[in-house]
Amino acid sequence: MNVTLVGGGPGAWDLITVRGMRALQDADVILADHLGPTSELDRLCDLEGKEVIDASKLPYGRQMAQEKINELMIEHARAGKRVVRLKGGDCYVFGRGFEEFQACAEAGIPCAVIPGVSSAIAVPGAVGIPVTQRGLVHSFTVISGHVPPGHPASLNNWEALAHTGGTLVVIMGVKNAPAIINTLIDAGRSPDTPAAVIQEGTTETQRAFRCTLGTLANTMAINDVAPPAVYIIGDVAALEAIP
Amino acid sequence: MNVTLVGGGPGAWDLITVRGMRALQDADVILADHLGPTSELDRLCDLEGKEVIDASKLPYGRQMAQEKINELMIEHARAGKRVVRLKGGDCYVFGRGFEEFQACAEAGIPCAVIPGVSSAIAVPGAVGIPVTQRGLVHSFTVISGHVPPGHPASLNNWEALAHTGGTLVVIMGVKNAPAIINTLIDAGRSPDTPAAVIQEGTTETQRAFRCTLGTLANTMAINDVAPPAVYIIGDVAALEAIP
Repeated sequence: MNVTLVGGGPGAWDLITVRGMRALQDADVILADHLGPTSELDRLCDLEGKEVIDASKLPYGRQMAQEKINELMIEHARAGKRVVRLKGGDCYVFGRGFEEFQACAEAGIPCAVIPGVSSAIAVPGAVGIPVTQRGLVHSFTVISGHVPPGHPASLNNWEALAHTGGTLVVIMGVKNAPAIINTLIDAGRSPDTPAAVIQEGTTETQRAFRCTLGTLANTMAINDVAPPAVYIIGDVAALEAIP
Repeated sequence: MNVTLVGGGPGAWDLITVRGMRALQDADVILADHLGPTSELDRLCDLEGKEVIDASKLPYGRQMAQEKINELMIEHARAGKRVVRLKGGDCYVFGRGFEEFQACAEAGIPCAVIPGVSSAIAVPGAVGIPVTQRGLVHSFTVISGHVPPGHPASLNNWEALAHTGGTLVVIMGVKNAPAIINTLIDAGRSPDTPAAVIQEGTTETQRAFRCTLGTLANTMAINDVAPPAVYIIGDVAALEAIP
């Protein structure tokens, strides 16, 4: 009985790690998100004899979905099953992975964690935009855009984020894009800063648009950019294969 | 004739992606760094009939090593070979990956890029430290510590980096650790901020030490922490499996 948290990568089935694929092959129960390689699981393992639970379809209600996921992991592990909790991207990049790890630890269930390719880095890369480039930046910051600037629950110092000198990558930030972009510009980041937005990166339905920080909100609006999407702000967003 | 840049992940052989492993299996020539899964290549592919070039042993001299790597990639591709350029971590995280991609483009050589698990995220994760945790941070910043604060070539605004409100992860920063740490503290980041340093993360020789920002430099010195190492600064560095 054990649980393995697996970072499934950005979406394409073969961008999971070898160790992650092997964990899927050895699993009795797979508790999967809608992100990551879930729709192509059959290319990574023989599903015969495995139970696959779609965690994105767990009912909300009196109980939060996350608590239900924790319960299911622990319940199946206690029943003697090898449980894989398959997540999109990397387990520890805004994925509540550590909460799941803690839930297992508190229940006395052995839990291994297998890292994954983070969408924050791989999605811009998939459209030819590196998060770093020598001579341009010495840092990049990955930001959750789930909580808007100014909200009491926000933990981001947007003034500082506007001035790091490095690349900014925002994930889970489609809904709050106008507020985030205006806050960065108001804090002093130039509206002429190159930017790009990528929807469903690394999958067959990938769409990407290059623009600037000043035109990013409008670019997303007129192209109906919908989650999952990543946007990247910084000089790297203007790089071309042949400069 | 083509080149594939492959992010080999943080070190353990099976933390490369499935797509990366397949590229190695299909390669005629592998041009490998000393980081990533290079020492265990034979667990990922049959080396019979393949030429493996250790790029970390290329001679310096009149020519820079990076130029020599670009030359070798292009030369072998032009000779009709399938070339894999195997790099540590992810190709685009401070790895000069985009420069290699550009060199191929300029030479008219088709070049694919396969992302990898970044050491910046996976190495803290390997010792039970997530780069993010709900309620603690909404961002994390990955910083190259290769150029010290105050150096004319520095592209980091350390004042802003001290105040993002998020996690900081420094890679390639062993030599400049005292300067970086003092700069962050002088800029206002509390010396009581939890911190940790991890050497050779995810490999069998991994070593890790938890401390605070104020004790980090001394912790590294007394334990002779040597590259490759990653340090992480922020509340996440104090998280435990059972809180």
